Amino acid sequence: MTLRAAVVGAGYWGPNLARNFRSSPDWELAAVCDLDADRAARVVGDARGVDVETSLERLLARDDVDAVAVATPANTHRGIAMAALEAGKHVVVEKPLAASVAEATEMVDSARDRGLVLMADHTYVYTQVVQRIRQIVAEGELGDVLFVDSVRINLGLVQPDVDVIWDLAPHDLSIIDAVLPGGLDPEGVAAHGADPIGAGRSCVGYLTMPLPGGAISHVHVNWLSPTKIRQMVIGGSRRTLVWDDLNPQQRLSVYDRGVDLDLTSRTEDLADRTAAGVSYRLGDMYAPSLPEREALGSMVGELAASITEGRAPLTDGEAGLRVLRVLEAASASLADEGRLVTPHSTEPKD
Amino acid sequence: MTLRAAVVGAGYWGPNLARNFRSSPDWELAAVCDLDADRAARVVGDARGVDVETSLERLLARDDVDAVAVATPANTHRGIAMAALEAGKHVVVEKPLAASVAEATEMVDSARDRGLVLMADHTYVYTQVVQRIRQIVAEGELGDVLFVDSVRINLGLVQPDVDVIWDLAPHDLSIIDAVLPGGLDPEGVAAHGADPIGAGRSCVGYLTMPLPGGAISHVHVNWLSPTKIRQMVIGGSRRTLVWDDLNPQQRLSVYDRGVDLDLTSRTEDLADRTAAGVSYRLGDMYAPSLPEREALGSMVGELAASITEGRAPLTDGEAGLRVLRVLEAASASLADEGRLVTPHSTEPKD
Amino acid sequence: MTLRAAVVGAGYWGPNLARNFRSSPDWELAAVCDLDADRAARVVGDARGVDVETSLERLLARDDVDAVAVATPANTHRGIAMAALEAGKHVVVEKPLAASVAEATEMVDSARDRGLVLMADHTYVYTQVVQRIRQIVAEGELGDVLFVDSVRINLGLVQPDVDVIWDLAPHDLSIIDAVLPGGLDPEGVAAHGADPIGAGRSCVGYLTMPLPGGAISHVHVNWLSPTKIRQMVIGGSRRTLVWDDLNPQQRLSVYDRGVDLDLTSRTEDLADRTAAGVSYRLGDMYAPSLPEREALGSMVGELAASITEGRAPLTDGEAGLRVLRVLEAASASLADEGRLVTPHSTEPKD
Amino acid sequence: MTLRAAVVGAGYWGPNLARNFRSSPDWELAAVCDLDADRAARVVGDARGVDVETSLERLLARDDVDAVAVATPANTHRGIAMAALEAGKHVVVEKPLAASVAEATEMVDSARDRGLVLMADHTYVYTQVVQRIRQIVAEGELGDVLFVDSVRINLGLVQPDVDVIWDLAPHDLSIIDAVLPGGLDPEGVAAHGADPIGAGRSCVGYLTMPLPGGAISHVHVNWLSPTKIRQMVIGGSRRTLVWDDLNPQQRLSVYDRGVDLDLTSRTEDLADRTAAGVSYRLGDMYAPSLPEREALGSMVGELAASITEGRAPLTDGEAGLRVLRVLEAASASLADEGRLVTPHSTEPKD
Repeated sequence: MTLRAAVVGAGYWGPNLARNFRSSPDWELAAVCDLDADRAARVVGDARGVDVETSLERLLARDDVDAVAVATPANTHRGIAMAALEAGKHVVVEKPLAASVAEATEMVDSARDRGLVLMADHTYVYTQVVQRIRQIVAEGELGDVLFVDSVRINLGLVQPDVDVIWDLAPHDLSIIDAVLPGGLDPEGVAAHGADPIGAGRSCVGYLTMPLPGGAISHVHVNWLSPTKIRQMVIGGSRRTLVWDDLNPQQRLSVYDRGVDLDLTSRTEDLADRTAAGVSYRLGDMYAPSLPEREALGSMVGELAASITEGRAPLTDGEAGLRVLRVLEAASASLADEGRLVTPHSTEPKD
Repeated sequence: MTLRAAVVGAGYWGPNLARNFRSSPDWELAAVCDLDADRAARVVGDARGVDVETSLERLLARDDVDAVAVATPANTHRGIAMAALEAGKHVVVEKPLAASVAEATEMVDSARDRGLVLMADHTYVYTQVVQRIRQIVAEGELGDVLFVDSVRINLGLVQPDVDVIWDLAPHDLSIIDAVLPGGLDPEGVAAHGADPIGAGRSCVGYLTMPLPGGAISHVHVNWLSPTKIRQMVIGGSRRTLVWDDLNPQQRLSVYDRGVDLDLTSRTEDLADRTAAGVSYRLGDMYAPSLPEREALGSMVGELAASITEGRAPLTDGEAGLRVLRVLEAASASLADEGRLVTPHSTEPKD
Repeated sequence: MTLRAAVVGAGYWGPNLARNFRSSPDWELAAVCDLDADRAARVVGDARGVDVETSLERLLARDDVDAVAVATPANTHRGIAMAALEAGKHVVVEKPLAASVAEATEMVDSARDRGLVLMADHTYVYTQVVQRIRQIVAEGELGDVLFVDSVRINLGLVQPDVDVIWDLAPHDLSIIDAVLPGGLDPEGVAAHGADPIGAGRSCVGYLTMPLPGGAISHVHVNWLSPTKIRQMVIGGSRRTLVWDDLNPQQRLSVYDRGVDLDLTSRTEDLADRTAAGVSYRLGDMYAPSLPEREALGSMVGELAASITEGRAPLTDGEAGLRVLRVLEAASASLADEGRLVTPHSTEPKD
Repeated sequence: MTLRAAVVGAGYWGPNLARNFRSSPDWELAAVCDLDADRAARVVGDARGVDVETSLERLLARDDVDAVAVATPANTHRGIAMAALEAGKHVVVEKPLAASVAEATEMVDSARDRGLVLMADHTYVYTQVVQRIRQIVAEGELGDVLFVDSVRINLGLVQPDVDVIWDLAPHDLSIIDAVLPGGLDPEGVAAHGADPIGAGRSCVGYLTMPLPGGAISHVHVNWLSPTKIRQMVIGGSRRTLVWDDLNPQQRLSVYDRGVDLDLTSRTEDLADRTAAGVSYRLGDMYAPSLPEREALGSMVGELAASITEGRAPLTDGEAGLRVLRVLEAASASLADEGRLVTPHSTEPKD
């Protein structure tokens, strides 16, 4: 059975969604909807059977649309998604899921109540490299995760409405959420930022997140760096992984290296314990071969599968909510001198 | 005039100091002092005219010793340095200058009162690359410093007595202190750490330091990383500098790249301001040629010069004190969930 | 005045040419011609005013086509190009210009006799980086060129009809031709190859070309390398340049480094001369900022300019001929144990 | 049983040999011999029981010297080694083994006739990385060796007496000799060089060596390169190996990548064969962990082992001879426009 999708929003991201729905074996693209008919028409191009819509209401009233992909500014996500859910459509939303935890919670509740799929378009999660990292962590190859350190810096477009943390960190947070066995559920969030050029919002940002069990996660995002770095290190008790996204010839390296603590030789004296019980593993490294495949293609495939199988997608509304909880806590921390802020409870509301 | 030095402590660092005093045109090495006579003798080796001493008291009583270099554990620095100063010797101390700000303040006060040189052996500051960075910043080539981001991670020896911040960050902090025009004087210090292997002290550490004028500095130190990174980025309003210490073929790169804010087009509306007033510079990069020279050789030369010229050395006791203030603030922050802690006043005590 | 182009051949390269003619301000795309109408139609897509042609004869009979771009297999280049020239069309031909020097000479002669433009589509020459290298060499920044070393290796598609030298080296040769002040005119060509997998043709190839004045050029092409390298070093008497095409963050580096021979201290004795007269420059490096722009766009622009200005294009038929002379000499050398073969005279035939 | 060694020649390499004999558990250093007593004394330093000798005759007359290490200019190797062998000493000689094949053959014959060890100090062969490469090749992990490509370029000291091929290529050749299962025994040698700065000898050199079975080996050495590259690629039918000696964090990478030719689908038609029978492996890569250990320490250990076990050392005189045969063929080729020259027979003389 082929499903039918409509894309709402013909700006930066919409065309990518439209292209991938069109080329997917699971989907037909029914319509592109934008207030600006010309913009929508340009996205449709010469595609046959794809309608241009300028009214969301009319779009949602159509019977031949199974799912709506929302690629509009973040502060409109809630309104459009809620309307679509109320019209019985499955919904996928560009990151971030909504402008606030409260809005996203409404959306998650509504989808659950109606038995519809609500998906966050955390695109990076569908890259081959993140899929492989998920698998490596899930199969216990790293052992326990000890730390996650992510750096995403470049000379970047200063955004008019959001700071660098809300602009870039959703990528890192959604990846960490997909990779950690229990999802992203830090014990606290401390955020520091700086706006040294007077842009009116943080252009350099640091997030520190203590994780359960003594582990720690840290994210560095920066619009002002002259060199581009996109690197994530996931340290484990058995192995440690380095992902360098700018090295297509060796994106992922898994090191059998680390520090071992011999618990049998543990004494009460800390100094002795360290001297006695620490040893180093200096084993081999391997770099898995990763096929090149467009992440968005896998994303729309997962949306189709979750709908037809009646299950939650990999990056469901809860995942989007977890990312938003951290972002909101980060903003609260940023406003309070980097104080450690506890994200709101992960329990769904009753 | 040739000065005469004695090295106290024949452990890891003492031999390096002894070797550099011996090979310096400014110095003669008079003695190596250690409680363990064999260790001291091994450091002296076949050098003629260098005595082995096992008593600090006897050493300090000698008339033919102008300066004492202290390379003993940090908690003994104060005692040895104070005795040496009281005996009228100039003193250079391995990093960190002392085990606490209080101890270091005593040492600084004593040296000042007696008109003697007290120097912190911040060795990295005397490398060719840091000397060049100092010059680049001092000559205004970078414009105003906007951010400093330093990463120093590797599979490292878990220390029995100090955490990763006290072990590694003194390098970063002393470099930043030497490079920033006014020295390292952050408005606050927030520190986060993790001990995910149960070593009894932080093995992963993050320091965030808001700087005056809206700039920010950040240090990442880590004993658990499978790959070695030693990189510092100094972002400026005119140019930005990247120092990659593990790339001997291109250690230093200066980029004419950055984000410019056009203040003339500034409006009250933040969104507009950003859209209208931001532009990007994408100019050339240059990598200065740096001669290879041993840093410790320059350090002992600076010690001699400061003594003969009757002036403070580049890395004087105040510099050591500024580094300690940040380290102490970091420990306080670490113990208080990363709260932003104000380092003690930089004013010398009366 | 807008010119009108037709693309002949709708295989791998034709669509790129068609796209660039369409998006160029200088050109209108009149038609795409292929024996397979479906293939041609797919290239035309939804473009208005672009015809699908299946007959070369009909295409060349049209009055509204100024230039023909040939993107068919190499052994058909001569036939198509000669017909087009006879029909009064300007012609641009995918590399290599023809299957042999004899064929290419016919084409060059025909174009010259008719006053038409014959251009070799040496695409790399139109990249920003090669344009910059041309400028650097032309302005004398490198001094005299001492050596050119080019490496282009990767796991590559074993071609059914040509060896690795004819497949890959035209890129290197056309670049060297464009960069060297007098074009590529080596005193000889020695070629070595190996077919260790039994593919029926060389999969590893080395070209050595002594250049006038004691300089040397060398090209390494390889289909069997597990890692991809695309690097060219151009050593000069004043500066030396390194182009690493796989490092988008620093594609081009110009080093003020080299070996200087002090001729004033030259003696008759070789050993003395070397000891006395050699010195080393270890100056700075700079990496120019290079804008990103599609090379084919510049190529079709140059084609239009050369037509309207009545002048030879940068990569004219002679340039294509010089590349073919080296390729033919390489094949002769390959068949004769790597003997140094003199390329045919560069004099145009009478 | 501890053996006793004497080092002849206190120039650049002698001190390294002396230091390693002193620190070896297998050896005592008996004497350092140089015509210049001061130079020899400086090498001896404060070492007890090590004599300074200025007469080779006197040194060789001593009963308490088992082996002589020759670190003098190449044109003196034969004379010193022959005298030492005649005096019944085992001999190790700095590379190259001698100044010519004829001289080296004399040395090999003499050592064989007297039952003494003659070793070539091919230091690189004793590095951890080359030892591992030897093992990888010997165990068949690469399958058949298809090509060996070695690059060793840098801004180098123009030598007063030898060209860049004799200066640098012995490293590459001795490594290839140690790594290839049957040693270095090419079917021919073609050498090209250039002296673009008028130094009186080649400063850029290329060696091409067809190997038995259709494989090929190539060496690029260069004194004029502004960037330093030391890289060797060994392509095999099963796996391919890349050694990057300037990347201490990942010196060795073994790729499960390559081109496979399916012989079962082989047809008479070459074009078809290629299209039909070629496939690509794109498997994982691994980078073995390599301990850091000084190569010369392993070299003197192997010398001791070969003496006590009465067997040939890993880099015996024959290995030195094979390297010289290629160097001599290279010089002949260089003098004859790069003609492919057959190295002299590997058969020992009667």
